[in-house]
Amino acid sequence: MSKAADDGGVPGGRGEPAQQLGGEAAGGKLASKLSASSFTPGWTKVSCPCCASERVEPLVLVKLGQKAVPETKRWLIKLIGAPQKDGGAGLLAHPGEDATGNIIVLSAPRCTLLRATEELGLCKIYHTGEMEAFAYNDRDNFRNSDNMEVFLTSAERQYIIKYELDGLRAQKDLRIPGLPDSCTLQKRDNIWQKLGQVGVVVDTFPLHNPDKLKDLSESWYSGNQLSQPLDKVNEYFGSSVAFYFSFLDFYTWSLLPPAILGLFIAYFSREVQREMLQSVSGSQEEEVQDEPDPLISGHMFQAVFSMLWSTVVIELWKRRSSTLSYQWGTLNLAERFAEPRPGFHGDLGVNPVTGRVEPLFPEWKRDLRMALVSVPVVGLFLGLVVLGMMCFYWAEARVKWLHKDWDSMISQTFLYVPSVLHIVYTNMLATVYRTVATSLTEYENHREESAYDNHLTGKILVFTFFNNFAVLFHIAFFKQDVPLLRKRLASLLIITQLVNQVTEVVIPFLVDRFISAPNRSEREDDPKEDKFRNQGTLPTFPGLFAEYIELLVQFGYLSLFSCVFPLTAVLLLLNNLTEIRSDAYKICKLFRKPFYPPVASMGVWKVAFEVLSFVSVVSNCWLLLLSPRLQKTSQEAGMSGSHLLVGAVMVEHVLILVKVIMAALIPDEPDWIRKKREHIEYTSMQALRQQKLNVQES
Amino acid sequence: MSKAADDGGVPGGRGEPAQQLGGEAAGGKLASKLSASSFTPGWTKVSCPCCASERVEPLVLVKLGQKAVPETKRWLIKLIGAPQKDGGAGLLAHPGEDATGNIIVLSAPRCTLLRATEELGLCKIYHTGEMEAFAYNDRDNFRNSDNMEVFLTSAERQYIIKYELDGLRAQKDLRIPGLPDSCTLQKRDNIWQKLGQVGVVVDTFPLHNPDKLKDLSESWYSGNQLSQPLDKVNEYFGSSVAFYFSFLDFYTWSLLPPAILGLFIAYFSREVQREMLQSVSGSQEEEVQDEPDPLISGHMFQAVFSMLWSTVVIELWKRRSSTLSYQWGTLNLAERFAEPRPGFHGDLGVNPVTGRVEPLFPEWKRDLRMALVSVPVVGLFLGLVVLGMMCFYWAEARVKWLHKDWDSMISQTFLYVPSVLHIVYTNMLATVYRTVATSLTEYENHREESAYDNHLTGKILVFTFFNNFAVLFHIAFFKQDVPLLRKRLASLLIITQLVNQVTEVVIPFLVDRFISAPNRSEREDDPKEDKFRNQGTLPTFPGLFAEYIELLVQFGYLSLFSCVFPLTAVLLLLNNLTEIRSDAYKICKLFRKPFYPPVASMGVWKVAFEVLSFVSVVSNCWLLLLSPRLQKTSQEAGMSGSHLLVGAVMVEHVLILVKVIMAALIPDEPDWIRKKREHIEYTSMQALRQQKLNVQES
Repeated sequence: MSKAADDGGVPGGRGEPAQQLGGEAAGGKLASKLSASSFTPGWTKVSCPCCASERVEPLVLVKLGQKAVPETKRWLIKLIGAPQKDGGAGLLAHPGEDATGNIIVLSAPRCTLLRATEELGLCKIYHTGEMEAFAYNDRDNFRNSDNMEVFLTSAERQYIIKYELDGLRAQKDLRIPGLPDSCTLQKRDNIWQKLGQVGVVVDTFPLHNPDKLKDLSESWYSGNQLSQPLDKVNEYFGSSVAFYFSFLDFYTWSLLPPAILGLFIAYFSREVQREMLQSVSGSQEEEVQDEPDPLISGHMFQAVFSMLWSTVVIELWKRRSSTLSYQWGTLNLAERFAEPRPGFHGDLGVNPVTGRVEPLFPEWKRDLRMALVSVPVVGLFLGLVVLGMMCFYWAEARVKWLHKDWDSMISQTFLYVPSVLHIVYTNMLATVYRTVATSLTEYENHREESAYDNHLTGKILVFTFFNNFAVLFHIAFFKQDVPLLRKRLASLLIITQLVNQVTEVVIPFLVDRFISAPNRSEREDDPKEDKFRNQGTLPTFPGLFAEYIELLVQFGYLSLFSCVFPLTAVLLLLNNLTEIRSDAYKICKLFRKPFYPPVASMGVWKVAFEVLSFVSVVSNCWLLLLSPRLQKTSQEAGMSGSHLLVGAVMVEHVLILVKVIMAALIPDEPDWIRKKREHIEYTSMQALRQQKLNVQES
Repeated sequence: MSKAADDGGVPGGRGEPAQQLGGEAAGGKLASKLSASSFTPGWTKVSCPCCASERVEPLVLVKLGQKAVPETKRWLIKLIGAPQKDGGAGLLAHPGEDATGNIIVLSAPRCTLLRATEELGLCKIYHTGEMEAFAYNDRDNFRNSDNMEVFLTSAERQYIIKYELDGLRAQKDLRIPGLPDSCTLQKRDNIWQKLGQVGVVVDTFPLHNPDKLKDLSESWYSGNQLSQPLDKVNEYFGSSVAFYFSFLDFYTWSLLPPAILGLFIAYFSREVQREMLQSVSGSQEEEVQDEPDPLISGHMFQAVFSMLWSTVVIELWKRRSSTLSYQWGTLNLAERFAEPRPGFHGDLGVNPVTGRVEPLFPEWKRDLRMALVSVPVVGLFLGLVVLGMMCFYWAEARVKWLHKDWDSMISQTFLYVPSVLHIVYTNMLATVYRTVATSLTEYENHREESAYDNHLTGKILVFTFFNNFAVLFHIAFFKQDVPLLRKRLASLLIITQLVNQVTEVVIPFLVDRFISAPNRSEREDDPKEDKFRNQGTLPTFPGLFAEYIELLVQFGYLSLFSCVFPLTAVLLLLNNLTEIRSDAYKICKLFRKPFYPPVASMGVWKVAFEVLSFVSVVSNCWLLLLSPRLQKTSQEAGMSGSHLLVGAVMVEHVLILVKVIMAALIPDEPDWIRKKREHIEYTSMQALRQQKLNVQES
């Protein structure tokens, strides 16, 4: 093995587990338990002297499948350990308890980590105390660049390992040792993808660090603290997760003003009290007109407030987001300039931007695929949702009519058939759509992981949102039945909360107590390998989509229909305060640690919230127009329906204009971040000029 | 003088005209007539050996005032000739016929030009054939960098001289020789501004190059050519002017589709013919209903077409604009990183972006001034416009009523009083507003020239537009009188065209024939100095504002009210084809050559056209709703007014949505420009990393 590493040989099938490197664990209080003390013998050798360290931190676990014979495992370990210039991953590998076991534990030497940090375009603290884009050549001027466990976050270290594994490409046609001849690698094939396809690698996941996790959970959800340890979350889970929790936090606190206003209106406005009583009790009692209504109702005030509020919140979030991104060093990510994502395919060519040889795929082809395939297919599915809803309404009316005709037990049960069928249909459609959306996005062939994620998320988001709101929109715009809308909204809000509390707090708690706890007790005297293996028994983290869509749907209830139910914000605020804890508990305890790439913002979700905030103006103006109070008042004042409508349209246009102007005037990043960014641009420009001088001189 | 340049002395009052430099004019066919053949003796000496050239091209003329005694003139010439490190401008100066005359002719040596090219961030052709940001250190790798007359455009060379003059700052407290003691310069005072204030410098303007001008005018407007020589315009007048003419060109050709559609509709639709006849003849004859109307009227089709057309045109212009900007090397301007504009003031401090010491002015203070001063004042003036219009209507009604009562000659003349008063009021208001807008923008204290220009233009634009359209909007939205609107629009279009043709073609021609021509005949045997002096007798170019606002108002007529007068596009197309020639003739022949900085786009005008294109959806939908045809059809179909209105609002929302989506989907720059831009970003990033390595090693 050492020979292979030294002479730069192409990974073959001749290696054996490499010599040991370094002695017992020395320092590093945090990771001492997980340190390589019992492990150090067995790690592959590092390929460069500066990376030799006393202890190796196990970061990622690779689970091998049935097909992986010891020969394949040895080849794999050697491949992972080989330097990058020889087509290896430049990582450290440990075969677990013995060379035949079905796990490989991975870690990364300093050089690989630092080079990947530069490639990813992460910013780190320079010796001046400023955040600067990390440059490998200048590594000694960055603070803590000798201690990887402080310099890089735990999430970054683990992501880098995944990044290196995903970047493994066959340098020539190659047979995988120990596998049938059918499993050969062509030149430039993605090795890790292939290994997954043929069943050699079943699973790759980052390892939890129990000490850090305990520390994190204590400061996150165990106590009664009001603020979240966001920097720690970023350290442990990465910026994707940290952005979600930051947004949840920000959004929850920004619910305070509308919640207070809602309480205020509910307390002082008799009309609102009456309406809410009706909507909750379900009775349609006659209005008691005991006193003259004020000129401007609470509803109107609430609606205008919430429309402007939503723009302010989103603009302020953009500023907060860019601040966080600066703090977490992801302001300047270089994904565009990195290698394309593993699933990307195209004809080999020279990238005009970076000058590297890599697969290229023309932009117009992707646009064409999106326009001619993706858009029609998504539209078809949205049409199917509407069709389902229409069938449901038709069937319901039909069944009611039958029941009136027959009035028997059988017809009674028939009453539930349309609802049940509709729920089954909706769920099936959602499942099918998810598969279709993934294939479509795969077919669009995005170069960058983030573009892929955004397009996939966008597709599912539109559908899910449509699915959630089709009925409410139908009631609001076609049936034009405000009391029914209010009733439906109240029940949705309360039911959603109950369901959320049960699924997110109660079930996780029960699972943890009665299923995970027995496992946990065993662990104390297990060897390290088994502890790692145990983490593999936890379910995979399902991703943040469900969490985000929950917030988006909430935000939809609040902004689109807020004027019919003033207490929406209060209910949501209460819900989100528990949501923060249950989400934190979930991700810490109930799932495997997920891989998340560093990201600079919450991506397509920001756009979704923004779009919703503009749609809310249309829906609120419409709902206010429908409100019986306004209709009556205007009739008394001698205004025709048309005049009222023209007035509403004018108000709507003015509000949209105000929102557009507000969004344009509030800068998307704080002044100091803008200056830092411009400073980076300036120094880059200067450096470019300087470089030309150097080229000149040499 | 040579001593002063060598020992780096601070410019004082001891210099005399410097020695001659170089012999007779050698090559350079283009500028041979203007070359320094008769001039070379008398130019100040260049401060660096590489800049010594055989001939010096006179670029800019400085006209001195009465106050400039020969002593002051000598000091000024020396200051201009001193190297930049000594606080001079690093330019070449020539005292004209003798040391006591009231002109100074300026030119620039190679080094000054190249350094300024780098400072401005201009892109030039690299030896590879690509456009790259010019770097002084790498100058030899740029094509033609040894021949300034090919490397830089004539407009750039002249602008650089203005740039250097504007950048002159006193390095210490200083008395200007030959002036009273009250005229002293404080440290860091802007010298050129001060000289203008105290009356030493009366005028600074770039010199025409008759040969080049003749060449340009021949290929521009003398023949029957359909396309404009835009690159030559950029070469001679700079990118601001070239962008205006490019846009005029682009916009004129993009009028073809609506013009053809308009002709088509006018030819086939009897209704439209009848309406147009009415609007032109002014008669309100009874409609003759001889055949059933088709379901969708020509108006509707025209309106929807023009709404979508405007978005497509603007998006395509953005792409064209970025292509032009790339070709003209202004894609990457570094104004943000350069010294602030001369009028900028603030407390001295370290610029966090560039690290230079310069006046700083906090962003929030500027925002505050805009929000609390500029916005209310502009609003006030807009209010005054509305007030004026209301007074006019009131007075007109009043006068008509009086006339009916009295019916005498006096009351007959009284009928015109309101119109006359309104015109006087409007013009006075516009003049006052222009002064106020300039002061406001000055008070806002913008750091960059382009920001200053954009804010000033924006202010005047909003007012002028409001002034032009207030009456039409009043007719459309308050009087709701479509026939009157049609009549007014037709007369505006025809009158505007006639007035334009007269003011822009006939008058210029007469002026040139009978006023400029006699001067021109004298010129042949005059000394060069007098020819230069003669250029000073031409009026200053009034700027592009009037030209742009004419296009914007046109575009307003077309997009806002197109559905009432389908032939608008045809009339505008004809108008613009002559407009191109007359504008070109005007700028070439009737005015002094203007200074224009290099710009990357047409700035705030793009935004104005974009906003108009969105407002057009609202106005067109409204006008269609008002159309008597639609009202009648819907009544016959049994639709209530409210239903019709809801329908119109829905159509409007859908159209706006479609426009937003179209604008988002059409990329603002062509794919190849995006790649070039990303390539520049990538190389800058690499250079920054590389630089750190060098710092490390050294």
